[in-house]
Amino acid sequence: MNTKIKIAICGYGNLGRGVESEITKHPDMELVAVFTRRRDLIATVPVVHVDDAADWKDKIDVMILCGGSAKDLPIQGPEFAKLFNTVDSFDTHAKIPEYLAAMDNSAKSGNNISIISVGWDPGMFSAMKLYMSSIISSGKTYTFWGKGVSQGHSDAIRRVEGVVDAIQYTIPIDSAMEKIRNGEMPELTTREKHTRLCYVVAADGADKARIEREIKEMPYYFSDYDTTVNFITADELHANHGTLPHGGNVIHMGTTGSDNGQVMEFSLKLESNPEFTASVMLAFARAASKLSAKGESGARTIFDIPPVLLSRFEADEIVRRLL
Amino acid sequence: MNTKIKIAICGYGNLGRGVESEITKHPDMELVAVFTRRRDLIATVPVVHVDDAADWKDKIDVMILCGGSAKDLPIQGPEFAKLFNTVDSFDTHAKIPEYLAAMDNSAKSGNNISIISVGWDPGMFSAMKLYMSSIISSGKTYTFWGKGVSQGHSDAIRRVEGVVDAIQYTIPIDSAMEKIRNGEMPELTTREKHTRLCYVVAADGADKARIEREIKEMPYYFSDYDTTVNFITADELHANHGTLPHGGNVIHMGTTGSDNGQVMEFSLKLESNPEFTASVMLAFARAASKLSAKGESGARTIFDIPPVLLSRFEADEIVRRLL
Repeated sequence: MNTKIKIAICGYGNLGRGVESEITKHPDMELVAVFTRRRDLIATVPVVHVDDAADWKDKIDVMILCGGSAKDLPIQGPEFAKLFNTVDSFDTHAKIPEYLAAMDNSAKSGNNISIISVGWDPGMFSAMKLYMSSIISSGKTYTFWGKGVSQGHSDAIRRVEGVVDAIQYTIPIDSAMEKIRNGEMPELTTREKHTRLCYVVAADGADKARIEREIKEMPYYFSDYDTTVNFITADELHANHGTLPHGGNVIHMGTTGSDNGQVMEFSLKLESNPEFTASVMLAFARAASKLSAKGESGARTIFDIPPVLLSRFEADEIVRRLL
Repeated sequence: MNTKIKIAICGYGNLGRGVESEITKHPDMELVAVFTRRRDLIATVPVVHVDDAADWKDKIDVMILCGGSAKDLPIQGPEFAKLFNTVDSFDTHAKIPEYLAAMDNSAKSGNNISIISVGWDPGMFSAMKLYMSSIISSGKTYTFWGKGVSQGHSDAIRRVEGVVDAIQYTIPIDSAMEKIRNGEMPELTTREKHTRLCYVVAADGADKARIEREIKEMPYYFSDYDTTVNFITADELHANHGTLPHGGNVIHMGTTGSDNGQVMEFSLKLESNPEFTASVMLAFARAASKLSAKGESGARTIFDIPPVLLSRFEADEIVRRLL
């Protein structure tokens, strides 16, 4: 390719800034604009109001949609898919089929490619589950998350009365993973797979015992887990818990032949969750650009993408170096 | 699909027997014949001499080529690719580009699909390296093998004078893997990645000290490794070293942003190497059958196959269950 793939970002939070930083690692791509609703923003490239997106229709190869799944993407996704090839990280599991259908309609009407739900979960974890369960179809797949910050659980703690700030880490239980790796196929309860570790800044004079009790008894979020609550100062929170690490393990255990245990595992250990997600999205932006150049259109998921399309190298070089 | 995918096996060694045993786990497939040069064989399906393969042209959807890479596949592969869709596990790394070109010519001339070098290494390990290096392109990929039996190294020991039988295990060095998982990007020598553990049955009266020395000093096979040689009896060898376990780890370490470590890892822990390889080949046989049904032809590698084609489930069900 002589010309670089022209990438734009829509949404300039943690994920959008991750795309901006990681794109510099890809010599075949360049960032051409950031789209946002904000008027006051400074970035390394032109900042454009989302309402003016149509003006950029022919200047962008792939638009990386970095908005949230709850409010931004259900509206923005189908609108942008009419104008641009897109990649997003839509992660509201139950609504993916509906979102996929809407994106497929829009992308086809605009003659564009949209790859949805790209990241690591959904995303790489989903692809791994598909490979693993297709290879050993009689096996069982287990997913563990962490150690990592769960934004949803941290927010839930912040809503407890008397809480000033909080960070929640989801922690997988090693002994449960070891059982699977050793060839067992255990039935694991929620409590047997993960623990939850909370760092909480309480308001002056707040009843810490009540706060701890309310957190631990919170249905769905904490009541099914062994939860530890540590009270710390705001300074300690900022000093020690300011990054967004995450990760997890997909483990598939099955048997072949008479009773030969076969264990496949994919794991991630990430110091920056948003920067990793951004990196996955950029690799799939390359695939979107290639599929679009071939004249294809419509919505795709990670399951539809041949891995060769993710690379900036030609197929014969990939075969020589990696097969 | 109303009718099952008709599979045949060419070559009836460990791998061929693995395909025969694992195909029973796939309700959408059936084994219709075993092709071999032997005349005395009993299998669960008709046994056909390889010379009569052309008679079966229209009775088989995918031929699984289970012959060896050194002598069988370079001849058999291109011949069979003219007649059938094929899947093979060609693993002579340096000759893959040449083999791919020959298979592509034959498969196109016969209007068939041939997926080559399918298994775990080459195969799933290759695909993982491509995903990982495309996502964090500035990172570094490390491959470890074992604990597992290396057939090539076992054979090399058997050629030493005074050796009656032998099994060699390749063992990865845990501390080297831990360094990478902890975010270092070490330069590792051959000796720092694996050790070699040998169980040797010596002939009566053989000079064990000489045998041990000859093994440890064998260039390429052992001299670059810390090698342990244990002498055991033939009975012990058969009792304790009769299975073919294997496995390994692909670990990719890189950074994003200013200096955030990101570690991806794929690992296999296999109690039966040939049965696992057979399972991978069957999943890709399904892909070959689907691509051929779409009218495609030519040779493919694991890099070209969208994972959705590996599953016996429809795309919408896969999205609902795994994304």
